[in-house]
Amino acid sequence: MNKFHISPVGYVRSDITAREHAPRQGRDASAEARIEILPQYINAVDGIKQWSQLLVICWLHLADRDTLAVHPRGDASAPLTGIFGTRSPARPNPLAVYTADLLSVEGNVLNVRGIDAVDGTPVLDIKPHIHRLDD
Amino acid sequence: MNKFHISPVGYVRSDITAREHAPRQGRDASAEARIEILPQYINAVDGIKQWSQLLVICWLHLADRDTLAVHPRGDASAPLTGIFGTRSPARPNPLAVYTADLLSVEGNVLNVRGIDAVDGTPVLDIKPHIHRLDD
Repeated sequence: MNKFHISPVGYVRSDITAREHAPRQGRDASAEARIEILPQYINAVDGIKQWSQLLVICWLHLADRDTLAVHPRGDASAPLTGIFGTRSPARPNPLAVYTADLLSVEGNVLNVRGIDAVDGTPVLDIKPHIHRLDD
Repeated sequence: MNKFHISPVGYVRSDITAREHAPRQGRDASAEARIEILPQYINAVDGIKQWSQLLVICWLHLADRDTLAVHPRGDASAPLTGIFGTRSPARPNPLAVYTADLLSVEGNVLNVRGIDAVDGTPVLDIKPHIHRLDD
C-alpha cells in the first residue's frame, strides 16, 4: 500500500497558459475558468447544480515534487518553512484544494470562479463545499 | 498525462479500526487522531506548529472507486445524486479533505482533532487551513 494510481476526471480550461502568470492563490483570482468533465464521469455531476461552492482538487502537474521546504510567498527574508506549513504548489504530492464558486453547469462543463490553475491542469475530484465541514 | 503516481507522506493512527465505525463526516468527530509522518518527509513539517487548523488530504483506501452516483447519507428516499455533488467516500479518486485542529506536534507525529479516518489510512498532503482561501 505504498503507491496509488490516480486518473483525472477532467481538466481545467482557463486563460492562464503559463505558470508565471498564475496568481499566488486561487481565492485571489476573480477570473473565471471552466472544468471539462471527461465523458466517462458525466453521471457523477448529476445534481451538482444545487451547490454554490465546490471543493475542487487538482493535480499541479508542473510542480516540483522534491522540495520539502520553501521561503513562504517566495520572500527570501521569510524563514525556510516545511512545505506542509505552506500553500506552495511544490510538494511531494502536488495536490491543490480550491474553494470555487459554481456559476453554471452546461453538460459536462462547470463554469467556476476562484480557480487560478494553468489551462490543462488535471482535476482529480470535486465535492460540495459545506461550511460545517470545511470552514 | 492520464495517470499519476501518488505515495503516502504518512498514515492516520486512530481508534477507528473498521469503516462501519467511522462517523459519517470528519468534522463531527471529536475523537483525536495522530498523523505519523514518514521519516523521509520529516523536514516538511518544520514550522507547522504556527497553524491551528490544517487541511489534511487522505486516500480512502477502502472506498469503492466505481460508483458514480449515490443516495446521499445512505438515505434510500433521497434522490440518486452524482458523487461530485456529495461527500461520499465512494468516488473515482477516493480523496478526503479534512479540516482538522492541530493540537500538538511531537517529532514526526501531529496530534489532531477532526479526522475520523480508519486507522492506517494513507495521508497524501497537509496544508495550513487559511480562512481567506478555504472558507
